[in-house]
Amino acid sequence: MARERIYLFDTTLRDGAQTPGIDFSVEDKIAIASMLDGFGVDYVEGGYPGANPTDDALFERKRTQNAAFVAFGMTKRAGVSASNDPGVNALNRSKADAVCYVAKSWDYHVRVALGCSNDENLDNIGRSVEATIAAGKEAMVDCEHFFDGYKANPDYALSCAKAALAAGARWVVLCDTNGGTQPHEVRDIVGAVIEAGVPGGRLGIHAHNDTEQAVANSLAAVTAGARHLQGTLNGIGERCGNANLVTIIATLALKPAWAERFETGVTAEQLEGLTRLSRSFDELLNRSPAAQAPYVGSSAFATKAGIHASALVKDPATYEHVKPEKVGNVRHIMVSDQGGKSNFISELMRRGITVAKDDPRLDTLIAMVKEREATGYAYEGADASFELLARRTLGDVPDFFEVVSFRALVERRHNALGEIVTVAEAVVKVSVDGEERMSVAESANGPVNALDMALRKDLGKYQAEIADLELVDYKVRILNGGTEAVTRVLIESADASGHRWWTVGVSENIIDASFEALMDSITFKLMKNRGHAGLAAAE
Amino acid sequence: MARERIYLFDTTLRDGAQTPGIDFSVEDKIAIASMLDGFGVDYVEGGYPGANPTDDALFERKRTQNAAFVAFGMTKRAGVSASNDPGVNALNRSKADAVCYVAKSWDYHVRVALGCSNDENLDNIGRSVEATIAAGKEAMVDCEHFFDGYKANPDYALSCAKAALAAGARWVVLCDTNGGTQPHEVRDIVGAVIEAGVPGGRLGIHAHNDTEQAVANSLAAVTAGARHLQGTLNGIGERCGNANLVTIIATLALKPAWAERFETGVTAEQLEGLTRLSRSFDELLNRSPAAQAPYVGSSAFATKAGIHASALVKDPATYEHVKPEKVGNVRHIMVSDQGGKSNFISELMRRGITVAKDDPRLDTLIAMVKEREATGYAYEGADASFELLARRTLGDVPDFFEVVSFRALVERRHNALGEIVTVAEAVVKVSVDGEERMSVAESANGPVNALDMALRKDLGKYQAEIADLELVDYKVRILNGGTEAVTRVLIESADASGHRWWTVGVSENIIDASFEALMDSITFKLMKNRGHAGLAAAE
Repeated sequence: MARERIYLFDTTLRDGAQTPGIDFSVEDKIAIASMLDGFGVDYVEGGYPGANPTDDALFERKRTQNAAFVAFGMTKRAGVSASNDPGVNALNRSKADAVCYVAKSWDYHVRVALGCSNDENLDNIGRSVEATIAAGKEAMVDCEHFFDGYKANPDYALSCAKAALAAGARWVVLCDTNGGTQPHEVRDIVGAVIEAGVPGGRLGIHAHNDTEQAVANSLAAVTAGARHLQGTLNGIGERCGNANLVTIIATLALKPAWAERFETGVTAEQLEGLTRLSRSFDELLNRSPAAQAPYVGSSAFATKAGIHASALVKDPATYEHVKPEKVGNVRHIMVSDQGGKSNFISELMRRGITVAKDDPRLDTLIAMVKEREATGYAYEGADASFELLARRTLGDVPDFFEVVSFRALVERRHNALGEIVTVAEAVVKVSVDGEERMSVAESANGPVNALDMALRKDLGKYQAEIADLELVDYKVRILNGGTEAVTRVLIESADASGHRWWTVGVSENIIDASFEALMDSITFKLMKNRGHAGLAAAE
Repeated sequence: MARERIYLFDTTLRDGAQTPGIDFSVEDKIAIASMLDGFGVDYVEGGYPGANPTDDALFERKRTQNAAFVAFGMTKRAGVSASNDPGVNALNRSKADAVCYVAKSWDYHVRVALGCSNDENLDNIGRSVEATIAAGKEAMVDCEHFFDGYKANPDYALSCAKAALAAGARWVVLCDTNGGTQPHEVRDIVGAVIEAGVPGGRLGIHAHNDTEQAVANSLAAVTAGARHLQGTLNGIGERCGNANLVTIIATLALKPAWAERFETGVTAEQLEGLTRLSRSFDELLNRSPAAQAPYVGSSAFATKAGIHASALVKDPATYEHVKPEKVGNVRHIMVSDQGGKSNFISELMRRGITVAKDDPRLDTLIAMVKEREATGYAYEGADASFELLARRTLGDVPDFFEVVSFRALVERRHNALGEIVTVAEAVVKVSVDGEERMSVAESANGPVNALDMALRKDLGKYQAEIADLELVDYKVRILNGGTEAVTRVLIESADASGHRWWTVGVSENIIDASFEALMDSITFKLMKNRGHAGLAAAE
């Protein structure tokens, strides 16, 4: 039997931008749009052109290749024509493929918030949709407060949906704006809307998580006939968040109750990247991924020693609701130190390092990793530093060079023109084959950049080898907080081969921590050039 | 119409103890049992006496006054009588009021994990329940893997439930052990079990969150007729967690779809302590409460959006699905580049700053906040810097002092003992009333600490005023990443009055950004001392 298509609409960059504590820059938005675009999502809503400089800049170009790029905004105001409404014009002139209008569908809000008549609101919806279609774009309408509006005045809520439809909107999206609607109410109301003549194939749902049921509400709408689901990466969004698209994608694809009847644009191969997608997004937000996140969390397939663990080893299928590898996650059984040991051995093997189970250096390495992680190191996020630590413990990392001393200076002063400027300068003294070399560099981007430049200026016989080394990302996290604070720095490096690797440094002193990570990066690059660095570099 | 009673069963201390990273001590368990006992929960499951020393110690006494104190354990083994089974005896001799047995109800697991016959398993259930009742305790049975078992062999799964019932169990609890069952499947299967003769008034559900639908599954079981719900505080538990009892309690009490038909043992007054309960539990676990947690999170009633904020101020009821005070939480309207004019006015009023809607300085302020947030500032997280920016725009911040120049030096070198040390030193030159003052400080904790010390060393006539100022937290975020990176620094300060405030600085140079936030903190403190700083300091 042919499966019905469900369309996925991502609003991470628009409704997700309402999350307290999250502020996307234009560069963030471009990066996230590109992540989503490669993931089989049908629509990527970028923001609200005309409302703020970030979104104006974003919509100067189309930012997706596969997904439709969507601009969000309000329907035209009452009393002006769509062609004279600056907001509508900003949307239609943007480089978006589609425009998603937000329209009031609760008569109470039409009166109180818009201050126009019910009929004017219907007219605003219809004329705005027509203007977008005339501009050659797809139009859709988010019916705000639909469920609460429907409970208060079903006829008027329905007439808003029908006005959008009659004007040619591809989708009418029923929004549970306040997030309090229960799944059985969603099912009943979506069913009634279809019954009243709005085809399910043009009907969508936009759910919020205020009672922890945004996923259930989205799926209840599918049961009732809706075929378009809105949500965000990791469920970010205003208040308690939007429907979590990560969970929805996996559930539709992997749970037989849905997969037997429906399909999305996400391929099985893309689905295997789901865990990476979710975690990369958290990385970009500079926050720790939620360990207990469904499907993609580090604990999602973890079992603690106990009544299940031994049976799980015998037959995982009967203790796991889906296979972790389908979403790119891994099973994790926390049984014993012995289990920890085989974990390490397989981690090392993955990097081409062979070590016997009874080699005492393996115990040293395990103890060292545990001790260092307790003081703030995070080797999970710094593959290259982990590999160096392992190879050093096993004795096969040469001392390429030694840093004798370094110095970094930041100065804010008046320059010759009387302007206030801040400059950074760094001096590094290294010793290569017993010969000392001293380099100095200056930077407008701060002391770490100056140190990096000075360190890589003259490494003697190794200099040519590191010419293509580039620092591509830099992250700082303060651990413990307050006066006991320790700084963890993670640095991502790349070279001309396209390989990327992460290194870590930890210290009370941020400059010291950064320098440690920079040193690891150069050493890893030199090991890599000698064919000693394993898979970490290839990832 | 009389409302039907729903019974709440908390398994935080038993199933919640399976959460990766959580290890309860006996003292923890006693404290948590007492928190739950004062909250109107009907059952508090403490753990598994006989399985580990912590739980043995816990069950030496009854740890609840109002709730029934429950011991968890396996049914008797095949081939021994209940009175000769050490596990069953440990349960029945414990100081628990009730015993909850876990029993296999999927024939596959009976064969593979227990290695006994289907009939022997039924006998084990019946005899164990009888032994507990004979010991003067209430008995109940968790039917493990019930939903998967029912799909595989409905007759056998049902016969397990009926064996428990026939032996006198107060409750038969259907467990979605692997957490993958969908809400409509729960509804159908619970309905079928009731249809087959198990009364809903003796039926419970135990749901897991592996598809983010544990709350929806629990409520779907209520719809189908079950009257006993198991869950944990904040949804902790194995893998993705158990059903979140905090959300379930609030939803049953406050959402009309449930509250009109059902009631629990939680009073309206206890419900007002829900936010405190949830956050105290996180405190006890030494973790930050989830900002986006339904009902109780700090963001659960926070609004950033301009389009909603203005209406929210007018009439909160139409933008909030429940009143925050019902669960002891508070409404929060935030400033950000998403916000409109009314957002700003109400935020300023909160700080004792009055400005007319048509005052051009208000437009200047809004434009400035938008522009600065586009370059990386985040005023939402830096109340004190927002207030200073507002007061500066409105012209009422004096120039207390001016920083003429500063310099920070970080040096790694060999000391006199030949050890490698890293030291930071900073020099700051300030001008107070036209008089220049120069201070120097040294720190082992890096350049920001050294700068902070130097800056606060000599502010002339203001020095005594800032003696109680303390830097209590420091956060760094790299925006954009890569070579275009900009650094945002957030600093939390406190003084002897117990007030705390956050300030922000942004620059390509981390030292520069830190310095900006430090300067704001001192200026805010001086304003505050003069009675000019608003509510930001009181939070």
